[in-house]
Amino acid sequence: MTIRLSPEERLDDLLTHELKIVQSSEVFSFSLDAVLLARFCQVPARGKIMDLCSGNGVIPLLLSTRSKAQIESVEIQERLWDMAKRSVDYNGLQSQINVRHGDLNHIDLSMENGCYDLVTVNPPYLPVPNGDQNVNAHIAAARHEIHCTLEDVIRVSSRLVKPGGRVAMVHRPARLADIMLLMRKYRLEPKRIRFVHPRKAEEANMLLIEALRDGKPEIRLLPPLIVYEDNNEYCEELLQVYYGQTAELQTEKESGKGEQGA
Amino acid sequence: MTIRLSPEERLDDLLTHELKIVQSSEVFSFSLDAVLLARFCQVPARGKIMDLCSGNGVIPLLLSTRSKAQIESVEIQERLWDMAKRSVDYNGLQSQINVRHGDLNHIDLSMENGCYDLVTVNPPYLPVPNGDQNVNAHIAAARHEIHCTLEDVIRVSSRLVKPGGRVAMVHRPARLADIMLLMRKYRLEPKRIRFVHPRKAEEANMLLIEALRDGKPEIRLLPPLIVYEDNNEYCEELLQVYYGQTAELQTEKESGKGEQGA
Repeated sequence: MTIRLSPEERLDDLLTHELKIVQSSEVFSFSLDAVLLARFCQVPARGKIMDLCSGNGVIPLLLSTRSKAQIESVEIQERLWDMAKRSVDYNGLQSQINVRHGDLNHIDLSMENGCYDLVTVNPPYLPVPNGDQNVNAHIAAARHEIHCTLEDVIRVSSRLVKPGGRVAMVHRPARLADIMLLMRKYRLEPKRIRFVHPRKAEEANMLLIEALRDGKPEIRLLPPLIVYEDNNEYCEELLQVYYGQTAELQTEKESGKGEQGA
Repeated sequence: MTIRLSPEERLDDLLTHELKIVQSSEVFSFSLDAVLLARFCQVPARGKIMDLCSGNGVIPLLLSTRSKAQIESVEIQERLWDMAKRSVDYNGLQSQINVRHGDLNHIDLSMENGCYDLVTVNPPYLPVPNGDQNVNAHIAAARHEIHCTLEDVIRVSSRLVKPGGRVAMVHRPARLADIMLLMRKYRLEPKRIRFVHPRKAEEANMLLIEALRDGKPEIRLLPPLIVYEDNNEYCEELLQVYYGQTAELQTEKESGKGEQGA
């Protein structure tokens, strides 16, 4: 299998299931945030999944190891979309993953409203900067609410998901109140939340949240994920993410292989 | 010092500063929730503090060790208010703590609107039960939203606190979205949140939250409080609560004693 790579691009290991992903430190590399979201969300065994603000496609690639659902994605930046497309091709996942280039505020998704069992999204976290132009346009668009706001993301997610379907998001804890209010506004009821703390005595710097379309109000606040142990090593859960596989994923992989006759 | 106690009442140690509190397992005993709230909230050095749904007055008693502010409280149940009053008298805190008997939905607090630097509240957590009459009326009123709803508590707190003043509450994580929405509705901006988990691998069962009247939206998600260590012993922080004093409280106590010329 060959792949076309630009000079500044590289083909990285996705750390699980021998998947590879096209990355570029100049344009975009996936982060722990996306990896944790892909593990946190509850996936349907089959059906349809949509990943918004999909970047270089890390979430669709990871979800393909957890579900046989058809996975769609939308990414506004053509260069990132092109990287995602090449990764899907390289991994031979064209029949399961369809990556689309478009602006979620303008792309016509009306035929897909209410069709999805799960919508995932790792949106830009930061308000539009005023004057801070230190970062390049690609990285700025991935980090800042330049092309879509938190409300855009939640409104579109709510439209796409079916009643009883799930929307899973990763964001910053600072925005917790905004996320809650906007989810309620668009009939997404927050059901599961997990906070990620770099160390046990430190404030959370990441929020994983899953909402149910038209769900009953009642939140489960999951055990915290503490990234580093006292000895500065990754916690067991993160070691599994980076260097191993959970028993659950291992089982899924094996049963998947079995069905493919491998 | 003598104190009048009913047959089922006892005089318990408040675990800090040699304070004592009238308790009754038949009517009401304070819980870890109230103790943690009294430690979690940021107190003004002076000024005015209001404690709503005050029960047997554990929060005012504990706050008197952290602040020289004038402390008011309101409790709807006459029997609990009477216990609180006797505790205040027994500890000689009549000049700092004024406990009032009344229903926060009907007591006239209009002269005190916008007067408080801090409002604390440990409200009933549960919706009104339908038919479950296993518990007695006193305990039911402390646990269930019989006399006041979450919205009542937040509306009254918001009225009483001054712009830039704080409202601190303890509640269940299941209600997180309701709390956020109602706080925003009444111009209380959530600023600090801490979740309490019984063990590190368990879901949170308690939520400590502090909001700022007319504050700027930005939440700090504090390190989790994990009550029990792996060996089933209290964590260091809880050992301090129950059997010791933090350095901070120790210092406050000593400086306080100094000012009283003791």
